[in-house]
Amino acid sequence: MPRPKPRNVRGFRDRFAADLLLKQRMVETVRRVYESYGFVPMDTPALEFVDGLGKFLPESATPEGGIFYFRNPDAEESVPPSHPDHWVALRYDLTAPLARVVAQYQDLPRPFRRYQIGTVWRLERPGPGRFREFTQFDFDSVGVKSVAADAETCSIVCDTLEALGFAADDYLVKVNNRKVMQGVLEVAGVGDADLGNIDSQGAAVLRAIDKLDRLGLPGVVALLGEGRKDRSGHFAEGAGLEPSQIERVERYLGGTAGTRDAVCAELMELVGDSETGREGVEELLSMHEQLGAGGYGDDRVSFDPTIVRGLSYYTGPVFEGVLTREITDEDGKVREFGSIFGGGRYDDLVERFTGQKVPATGASAGVDRMLEAVKLLEANPRRSTSRVLVTVMDKKRVPDYLRIAGEIRASGIAVEVFLGSGNIGKQLKYADKVGIELAVIAGSDEFKAGEVQVKDLALGRELAAGIESNEEWRAARPAQQAVPTEKLVETLQGLLRAIDR
Amino acid sequence: MPRPKPRNVRGFRDRFAADLLLKQRMVETVRRVYESYGFVPMDTPALEFVDGLGKFLPESATPEGGIFYFRNPDAEESVPPSHPDHWVALRYDLTAPLARVVAQYQDLPRPFRRYQIGTVWRLERPGPGRFREFTQFDFDSVGVKSVAADAETCSIVCDTLEALGFAADDYLVKVNNRKVMQGVLEVAGVGDADLGNIDSQGAAVLRAIDKLDRLGLPGVVALLGEGRKDRSGHFAEGAGLEPSQIERVERYLGGTAGTRDAVCAELMELVGDSETGREGVEELLSMHEQLGAGGYGDDRVSFDPTIVRGLSYYTGPVFEGVLTREITDEDGKVREFGSIFGGGRYDDLVERFTGQKVPATGASAGVDRMLEAVKLLEANPRRSTSRVLVTVMDKKRVPDYLRIAGEIRASGIAVEVFLGSGNIGKQLKYADKVGIELAVIAGSDEFKAGEVQVKDLALGRELAAGIESNEEWRAARPAQQAVPTEKLVETLQGLLRAIDR
Repeated sequence: MPRPKPRNVRGFRDRFAADLLLKQRMVETVRRVYESYGFVPMDTPALEFVDGLGKFLPESATPEGGIFYFRNPDAEESVPPSHPDHWVALRYDLTAPLARVVAQYQDLPRPFRRYQIGTVWRLERPGPGRFREFTQFDFDSVGVKSVAADAETCSIVCDTLEALGFAADDYLVKVNNRKVMQGVLEVAGVGDADLGNIDSQGAAVLRAIDKLDRLGLPGVVALLGEGRKDRSGHFAEGAGLEPSQIERVERYLGGTAGTRDAVCAELMELVGDSETGREGVEELLSMHEQLGAGGYGDDRVSFDPTIVRGLSYYTGPVFEGVLTREITDEDGKVREFGSIFGGGRYDDLVERFTGQKVPATGASAGVDRMLEAVKLLEANPRRSTSRVLVTVMDKKRVPDYLRIAGEIRASGIAVEVFLGSGNIGKQLKYADKVGIELAVIAGSDEFKAGEVQVKDLALGRELAAGIESNEEWRAARPAQQAVPTEKLVETLQGLLRAIDR
Repeated sequence: MPRPKPRNVRGFRDRFAADLLLKQRMVETVRRVYESYGFVPMDTPALEFVDGLGKFLPESATPEGGIFYFRNPDAEESVPPSHPDHWVALRYDLTAPLARVVAQYQDLPRPFRRYQIGTVWRLERPGPGRFREFTQFDFDSVGVKSVAADAETCSIVCDTLEALGFAADDYLVKVNNRKVMQGVLEVAGVGDADLGNIDSQGAAVLRAIDKLDRLGLPGVVALLGEGRKDRSGHFAEGAGLEPSQIERVERYLGGTAGTRDAVCAELMELVGDSETGREGVEELLSMHEQLGAGGYGDDRVSFDPTIVRGLSYYTGPVFEGVLTREITDEDGKVREFGSIFGGGRYDDLVERFTGQKVPATGASAGVDRMLEAVKLLEANPRRSTSRVLVTVMDKKRVPDYLRIAGEIRASGIAVEVFLGSGNIGKQLKYADKVGIELAVIAGSDEFKAGEVQVKDLALGRELAAGIESNEEWRAARPAQQAVPTEKLVETLQGLLRAIDR
């Protein structure tokens, strides 16, 4: 049998310690904020029936567009592809499974406030920084009609970003309301403006506007009309609006800026006598009041008509949490993170299962983007958990080394014994490579004398820079000290305190 | 379009707060132990190429037996099913992906000590408490030949179970060595004893012994010989051993008990002059010494020849961590948890990719079984994160309620405002249902007086038991007090301290 080639499936990746140690701390911080608002954890499976997931992804007019799906292995041969039990798929978000859960369990509390962290999968074209498997960290309130819940959602996004170390002027939560956009389209005379129907002209307009960041206004305008050809030659069909209708949408997109109440005043004019549109603006006004009561001013939460969100299940307020501070990476390049949070209200998502209206709203954090941003706030990310390496000078003494490590560990210091192969030089190189700061060295001389050598590896590197010869090195043994065995733990604690200062 | 039925894929389940809040704490505890030994996190994708995963599951003689696999959506039409790029699958454990990673990244440190928590999937027949999706929490040392690493692995299992609240006599780590079993088979004259080859007679013996817990000795003996029919009428083929060979295996399984050195002495006799067998016993003796140096005695780590493990990639020491204390559930029934930890040495798993030997050993925790056990140690599992509910007496005052909640939250108390619909009675019932302990109540009277009502819900239920009429209730308002607004946080803190005592 030929040897398999070790490789990742396209669009998938492995992650290592420097990223993950930070990710864990970050996730804990986010969790604490969600919990401080009373959200409780929930978990759902990776696999769902395709009919339960629904068709809500942007660009997925085909039944299984954008998802990883396959034949349900339990389905009998006689179950045809058209049968709802035939296909299962990896979930593409955590909102569709939440709706399924709410429909399935009749005795959940109302409101049902849950958070969920989980992997989701999308069958998209992968690219730099664009993967098919990523982590979302959602919180949602189900059974809440009042837009006070939408306002609260925005506050939680602010609190989370600030708990992660971003200042109030590093980010912005940009809010819109799909009802406002629907109103604008109605007034413009777009016949089929139903944004909740993925096949409507209104939904096509929404998908076009969602590309504003990437394509700029001219690209969006082309997509609002006839369509446009991208660089690869692929032609994307347009929404087919009339020029006068496009002009109204352009006015909507470009003509609104300023404080929340100023934006509301302008929007109220743009929606004219559309009832849905006016309702949308009223909701924004109400959110404005509630946000203000919590101290969330225009500097942190703004109203922005260009925010529409790609997923087609939203029915009211929608928003994104974006970083506005210019963050430069180690090469001095300005990094773009896109939206770190996205969310909104989706009042019809449970109804598709049960026929009963269950209003709901919430937000989703893109954990991977969030991590990329948080990484740049971190000056010295840790790569190791061990802080001490107990080296092995004499293989026969391994039980002694294990015992010494056990004593160090009992004092609360993470420590490992070098159990690989190689001489002391190789062992210290290992410590260096993985980022362990201190080494304990004991050979037969030390055991006889009842002492151990302790070496400060970082300091050793510094001092070594000034040393000319091997002889000089051996004489000086920089940053190394002999310590009586019974003082070992105390010495290590002292050195680590000094390092952490 | 017909409404989809909300349902789970067979063998999959949803999880809720009471379980998950405990699971989070448990996982944190486990992680801290792993980190105290210097293991660092790693993450791999849910999807792997089938050829990279290999065929190591017990009972999976067929190429994709036991796994969820499907066509790689990137594979061109021209890629035949026999091509390695054709099939992708959900991972069935975290060890096979680790081997793939070690083969794929040449610059990983050696030893490479990583932990990984992740979901794995197995296409098995689901049953009570038996799911197709579960969580494993592994730690492994790659690039370590010495069985000191296997001894350390067993110590870590002990430390973990004790950190979770189990006492030293609540559990046992049972250790064996596959080389010993191979030696016994060689001495018994089993021609094809290669345990690493899933199609060998030796591997069939191993799979039979692995069923000892479930089938008892007579069932295993049948499987060692001709085979046996199970209750459903399904016939499982046997390993086809001769009666004299079966007798030797029976002696091996039944005749060894006692302290670790006593077991080693008996095993040394049973393996006779088999070189592999003697090597296996020597390794056990070496582990015995190293375990002793760390203080891990016979009461916590025993040697047990019946432990073989089902996965076919193990090459040396194998072990299981099992709970031995009889734990009874709330119905007084004794609960069986099976092994909570399993693991061993798998020196050939990287070699199948690279041709180079990379010794490795480690352990896997079954997080779901672990949780079931830990749950029974927990007297009062929390279901909520909020400890205070700010009720809404007057919808127009929502901004005020949000502000009050913000002040409570700023003091470090998790709190939520009731944003659903319903009168005060329904709101207090909600608090009861989700497990919130205190309620804050403020209507126009209270706002006018600059005060709020604080209600201790648990105490209220207790006191209410002694109250006869609605009038008496309204007069007494048990466990409820009026507090000046500026004393609210202080009052809540005091009440929560009392509850937590």
